[in-house]
Amino acid sequence: MEKALETYKKYQKKLQAYYYMMMIVGFDSSTIAPEGCFAKRGEHMAIVSEDLYKLETSEEYSNAIDILYKNIDQLDEVLQHEIKRIKRGIEKQKKIPMDEYLKFTELTAVSEQLWAKAKNNNDFESFRPTMEKIVEYWRKYLEWQESDEYKGFDILLEEHEKDYTSKEYDEFFNCLKEKLVPFVKKVVALPCPAKIDYSKYTISIQQQKAVCKAIEDIMCYDHVHGISAETEHPFTSGFGTYDVRYTNHFYEDNFVSSIYSAVHELGHATYELQCNPELDDTFSGGGCSMAMHESQSRFYENMIGRSREFVHLLVPVLEKYVPEIEWNEEDLYYYVNKPEMSYIRTEADELTYPLHIMLRYDLEKAMMSGELEVKDLPRVWNEKFKEYFGIEVPNVKVGCLQDVHWAGMSFGYFPTYALGSAYAAQFYNAMEKDIDIKKAVLSGTTKEINDWLKEHIHKYGSSKDPKDIMLLATGEEFNPNYYVDYLINKFSEMYNITE
Amino acid sequence: MEKALETYKKYQKKLQAYYYMMMIVGFDSSTIAPEGCFAKRGEHMAIVSEDLYKLETSEEYSNAIDILYKNIDQLDEVLQHEIKRIKRGIEKQKKIPMDEYLKFTELTAVSEQLWAKAKNNNDFESFRPTMEKIVEYWRKYLEWQESDEYKGFDILLEEHEKDYTSKEYDEFFNCLKEKLVPFVKKVVALPCPAKIDYSKYTISIQQQKAVCKAIEDIMCYDHVHGISAETEHPFTSGFGTYDVRYTNHFYEDNFVSSIYSAVHELGHATYELQCNPELDDTFSGGGCSMAMHESQSRFYENMIGRSREFVHLLVPVLEKYVPEIEWNEEDLYYYVNKPEMSYIRTEADELTYPLHIMLRYDLEKAMMSGELEVKDLPRVWNEKFKEYFGIEVPNVKVGCLQDVHWAGMSFGYFPTYALGSAYAAQFYNAMEKDIDIKKAVLSGTTKEINDWLKEHIHKYGSSKDPKDIMLLATGEEFNPNYYVDYLINKFSEMYNITE
Repeated sequence: MEKALETYKKYQKKLQAYYYMMMIVGFDSSTIAPEGCFAKRGEHMAIVSEDLYKLETSEEYSNAIDILYKNIDQLDEVLQHEIKRIKRGIEKQKKIPMDEYLKFTELTAVSEQLWAKAKNNNDFESFRPTMEKIVEYWRKYLEWQESDEYKGFDILLEEHEKDYTSKEYDEFFNCLKEKLVPFVKKVVALPCPAKIDYSKYTISIQQQKAVCKAIEDIMCYDHVHGISAETEHPFTSGFGTYDVRYTNHFYEDNFVSSIYSAVHELGHATYELQCNPELDDTFSGGGCSMAMHESQSRFYENMIGRSREFVHLLVPVLEKYVPEIEWNEEDLYYYVNKPEMSYIRTEADELTYPLHIMLRYDLEKAMMSGELEVKDLPRVWNEKFKEYFGIEVPNVKVGCLQDVHWAGMSFGYFPTYALGSAYAAQFYNAMEKDIDIKKAVLSGTTKEINDWLKEHIHKYGSSKDPKDIMLLATGEEFNPNYYVDYLINKFSEMYNITE
Repeated sequence: MEKALETYKKYQKKLQAYYYMMMIVGFDSSTIAPEGCFAKRGEHMAIVSEDLYKLETSEEYSNAIDILYKNIDQLDEVLQHEIKRIKRGIEKQKKIPMDEYLKFTELTAVSEQLWAKAKNNNDFESFRPTMEKIVEYWRKYLEWQESDEYKGFDILLEEHEKDYTSKEYDEFFNCLKEKLVPFVKKVVALPCPAKIDYSKYTISIQQQKAVCKAIEDIMCYDHVHGISAETEHPFTSGFGTYDVRYTNHFYEDNFVSSIYSAVHELGHATYELQCNPELDDTFSGGGCSMAMHESQSRFYENMIGRSREFVHLLVPVLEKYVPEIEWNEEDLYYYVNKPEMSYIRTEADELTYPLHIMLRYDLEKAMMSGELEVKDLPRVWNEKFKEYFGIEVPNVKVGCLQDVHWAGMSFGYFPTYALGSAYAAQFYNAMEKDIDIKKAVLSGTTKEINDWLKEHIHKYGSSKDPKDIMLLATGEEFNPNYYVDYLINKFSEMYNITE
């Protein structure tokens, strides 16, 4: 037992070293690596990955985990949670037939490129055979992983967000369908009361960068352990509490994009930076789940960043760095909160965003159950889109081929995005009982908010399940009504809707 | 034999993968890594380095090298050269007693920090005990490595530049002492004929970056395989011909620094990028030696970059990006070629630079022979400095503590800097027989020059010794007179000196 623990710690230390290197190389790939290096880089990384795989699956390490699992009651709470999670991953991996796994790996290696080409050519048929193979793989996967506890699509949902299955998601999305869809249709039909339309302005990239630096200060970004860089698609990657990196993009004709990408990614980064540093050397550091991570980024982006109080902080920053434009607080508030029916999920506003996810959830569920076949996907996508958004989809590029996720082998991942927003609303409600959030923002920094999130969510890292963190932080189980109420209240107030 | 070759190739492939990762992580460390990550990063890297060391010293790999060495005549030329070099490294390593090696490693881990502190406090005595240990180690090292072929300081010199010993260096530096020292003293006493003094201008960092981008174009930098970044101290790191990175620094009150750092580093980068790509998968890619690398960077920086023709190309670039300053070609030429007696090696101009190296060579030689003890180093440094430069050294910060090299365990490294400049002058002479260099520069890019260097030097990578490349490229053995003649001719013309 003691020896097993020692072996486990030894492997953990070694694996962390390799994961860290991989994180750095990955970040380099996404930011500055010369485009001509990728063929060779791929070869090098394949060699290192193979060594890493051997390490992860070595007999010595597996045996140690087995022994720890058998004596789990003797471990501390964090380690118990960790060992259970790792053991579960190993068990799941074992159920995949080796030949199928190899086929899956081969498919993964080519599918994204095929998708990108098909999307570019607006040609679903060229991607259809690949997409069929992907769906077929996952249907088989659901059979291999079937247990008394989980069946069908629930298996994938639960893998992406522990303890969340179609039961929870159906309840969540039904709530959206019932209350949000009719509300959204009402709001988007109303005229925007803003006098200045900020979409007509262009702002230099240098000025936008200065604004984003000021936002880092407002959000108390830790520059000792965190950096920023530029990429096409913003993202955050963190390793422990000591090396966190977020990226941003800058478009001269869309300054709101860089501002809210910064707030969003800084939300992810703050989560990573505020974990308990004692978890750094374990596998229990970092964010607890996809939805939980997304809840933090969206909490900052939407609940805080798109609030009147945050816009009030933004105006003097914009006046300082972009003095050539007239900044009106009220008009800017309406501009950054403008609801619109649009085709592209990643560009959607706060109000319509969950409808995009709802659509994908419906389709994934139908594909996994066998109810929907890939050949019918474009047609059904367009029909559902019309139903939820009230507009016709002109082509697959802005329709069912817009996202990389399915080509990237992800099924059951999309719903975590919407769930994240819903978590965020519930956290907001709980936080309000402890602190005056509006006043906290008006103080000039998000310090008080960061502290609350650290104490109630961030410090746990991934040492607890999302369900448990929800209970600890809010005193309640997940309840989607907070989210729907939040959206309806916010936009009713904005658009003077009384009902 | 065949199996040994296979094993060797397998290890080579694996080692390259790890070296590549280490290069990326190292570059990240030097550029954007958050300062708070280094303690943990150090722990992670120690683990990976240990694995790498095990790989490099594994029995299987050593045996394969032994077998290949015994059958060396059956290998192709590149592999012969490679195996001999590796075998030599292993033999040298074997002669170091393990306990001494461990002590050396411990010393290395702390010495740079101690040096930095001592330098900062202008306090030689606090660094003296460490420096004594370093010198003592190297003196013992010379005993362990003594052979019929090489004795004393020659051992270290030859390790840094194959086949170059005190015989070659003495001849070289004696030539400098005799001809250059009196000439330099004459030149620096003369008034500069330039009318505009560009040192009084400040130029924004953004403008300097635009100028450096234009320099990349002039020098035909390959943006598909090369990138640039910003660091305190400019450097170049390359891996194969597919991932080359150079860095630069920018000071508002010293625009010449960023311009010539760019030209210098792009020289290094061009060397890496123009190797034969077939050498990418071997240990024979990259630059052939320190002096050879330095010859390329200094060729571009001084012989090309500080020529009248290159300044002629710079003027329209500066007029475009820095229109607020009046640019006069002749005055700018004098400004970028201004000789001055100064204390700091890294800031020295082309003419006085070799005197700084000469001084260090004398002192290293005396320390290694036992003629000079560490306690006397500051005094002897200052005496020699007065002799060569004619000025008094005010303190050790700008005197014998200025460079990191000795604290970084490097002895015998300095002379390669001056040797690089001397190589460059000899290459220039050979190139002139084939192409009209001035006319080539005036064409607007260095394409023709790049091509000549590729064909005569770069393509070989490190598959040949410097001596052989010199012979192939110039048809002669190394001859320091080209360098001294070049400097005397250039500055005599500039300052109207007729013997």
